[in-house]
Amino acid sequence: MNAQETLKPYVIGLDLGGTNSVFGIVDSRGEIKATTAIKTQGYDKVEDYVDASVHALQVIIDQVGGIENIKAMGIGAPNGNYYNGTIEFAPNLSWGHNGVVPLAKLFSDRLGVPVALTNDANAAAIGEMAYGVARGMKNFIVLTLGTGVGSGIVINGQLVYGCDGFAGELGHVIMQRENGRLCGCGRKGCLEAYCSATGVARSAREFLLSSNKPSLLREMNPDDITSLDVSIAAGKGDALAKEVFEFTGEMLGAACADFAAFSSPEAFIFFGGLVKAGDLIMEPIKRSYEEKVLPIFKGKAKFLISGLDGASAAVLGASAIGWEI
Amino acid sequence: MNAQETLKPYVIGLDLGGTNSVFGIVDSRGEIKATTAIKTQGYDKVEDYVDASVHALQVIIDQVGGIENIKAMGIGAPNGNYYNGTIEFAPNLSWGHNGVVPLAKLFSDRLGVPVALTNDANAAAIGEMAYGVARGMKNFIVLTLGTGVGSGIVINGQLVYGCDGFAGELGHVIMQRENGRLCGCGRKGCLEAYCSATGVARSAREFLLSSNKPSLLREMNPDDITSLDVSIAAGKGDALAKEVFEFTGEMLGAACADFAAFSSPEAFIFFGGLVKAGDLIMEPIKRSYEEKVLPIFKGKAKFLISGLDGASAAVLGASAIGWEI
Repeated sequence: MNAQETLKPYVIGLDLGGTNSVFGIVDSRGEIKATTAIKTQGYDKVEDYVDASVHALQVIIDQVGGIENIKAMGIGAPNGNYYNGTIEFAPNLSWGHNGVVPLAKLFSDRLGVPVALTNDANAAAIGEMAYGVARGMKNFIVLTLGTGVGSGIVINGQLVYGCDGFAGELGHVIMQRENGRLCGCGRKGCLEAYCSATGVARSAREFLLSSNKPSLLREMNPDDITSLDVSIAAGKGDALAKEVFEFTGEMLGAACADFAAFSSPEAFIFFGGLVKAGDLIMEPIKRSYEEKVLPIFKGKAKFLISGLDGASAAVLGASAIGWEI
Repeated sequence: MNAQETLKPYVIGLDLGGTNSVFGIVDSRGEIKATTAIKTQGYDKVEDYVDASVHALQVIIDQVGGIENIKAMGIGAPNGNYYNGTIEFAPNLSWGHNGVVPLAKLFSDRLGVPVALTNDANAAAIGEMAYGVARGMKNFIVLTLGTGVGSGIVINGQLVYGCDGFAGELGHVIMQRENGRLCGCGRKGCLEAYCSATGVARSAREFLLSSNKPSLLREMNPDDITSLDVSIAAGKGDALAKEVFEFTGEMLGAACADFAAFSSPEAFIFFGGLVKAGDLIMEPIKRSYEEKVLPIFKGKAKFLISGLDGASAAVLGASAIGWEI
């Protein structure tokens, strides 16, 4: 570290979500020194979004002694392309759904610091390596189980971006080749269609329809059931809800067995809303993996839950991209 | 390159197969200067195998001016572990089937040059990057379609070895999760059980049994049918044989679509006996891939046939590992 770098002890992390944009100023130990947030939506033009962001950021930048203390900025965003610093055709962003938005450059021009951008799951993987359970690991896979299923893959200590910046779409490997569920990507049978939070709710509805088993979930309007409801019911011992998690974990374990044949990671790290179900989902994942994986890989991989604090994990992950610049 | 290196213009490549061990002395342009071979089997102890190898090697080493012209040796071998320089529990080797053989060290001690070892498919990938169609590529996947299905994966310009040296077993991702064919690995539904040379012969036997279509292959004893027979029949326009290649290519294309979701490679490179069927197999692979791959990856990946001369490809691949030391 040279003298100039020691003068710049912080990076800005931006967790750019479909609803909120959360900013944090983070030091090299992963401590968040200041945070702020704005609504992501409600701007027709990205320039207005960046304006509002910089306005909010200025307050917390001043709190840490001004922009001269900021080394860089990292952004985790849907459909983020690391190579180009762009958000490309992000369906859920009012100012980013129908084109290629050079967001890293826009922030860099306004703030005068280097800015890197990648998708949220890749940011989570970098965050785990910098501050979380993957410290010291060179080969691991982060799977984010949220509204969708995302992934960040690290091989030889480097994030895998592929030839175009879009590698690591493990939510879209095909797990059911015949009569698979329709996925948001337009294809059928993707991992995401089963093992995301929405996939779990869908499984619950299917299981309720296809059996007469009593279940706490029958008291609800099927369309209102969320993965959290399934998790709460399972926690109360509801047999049908537990079956839903068995089914979900079994498929995730089978998918991880295929991923092991690809990159033989030291660990699979799970992140996101569904992980709150704890052993209800982790136990079937591990059991299914060990049953199904190629013999040479048996007993080698660790199955871990993200070491990053839920509320700040995404900001920390994004900030970690900043340190990598 | 320092002065000492310029004095050492050659590496030794060893293609260690189940039947023959083929040695070549190769220059930095991939030209094979001298070759020799011994039988791989017939030795109870690995020391005797290494003895016989060094004895044969001495002749060709002398042809290029002695061991002082040899920079290193590279070995491509079944169940080869790059990290340890070992062959581990290789079922088809008389001297290597029930343990861990430190083959790299044994050769290095005898020859006095550094020796690196990896599995045959990884050697093929390094060979393609050094001498073949992957020159200049940083992200690609080699699939070897021979007796089995092997793979060598390159990401960010580096071979993927994973946490234990055994990454890149793409022949053992599961393509058929229900009623899958039994694979040599003891599991069911692996890519290898369908898309290897033996898998193609098996498909032909199944297709003959399940229909009454006329076919040239009906003239043969079903147990004698090989992938080459299917290829020859398809080349003559035999409809059933062509269906077998359609089926095989379609599954390979579907598998590649999943691999793209992992590492988004610039190219898939096919290598090995089945590739001799040319467009009969390459066309359905490409068609199936483009139909099935996630929209963001459509039209991006190249589908290539190995650029290495068949007879010497494995030796060149092995030698390329030597240059990497």
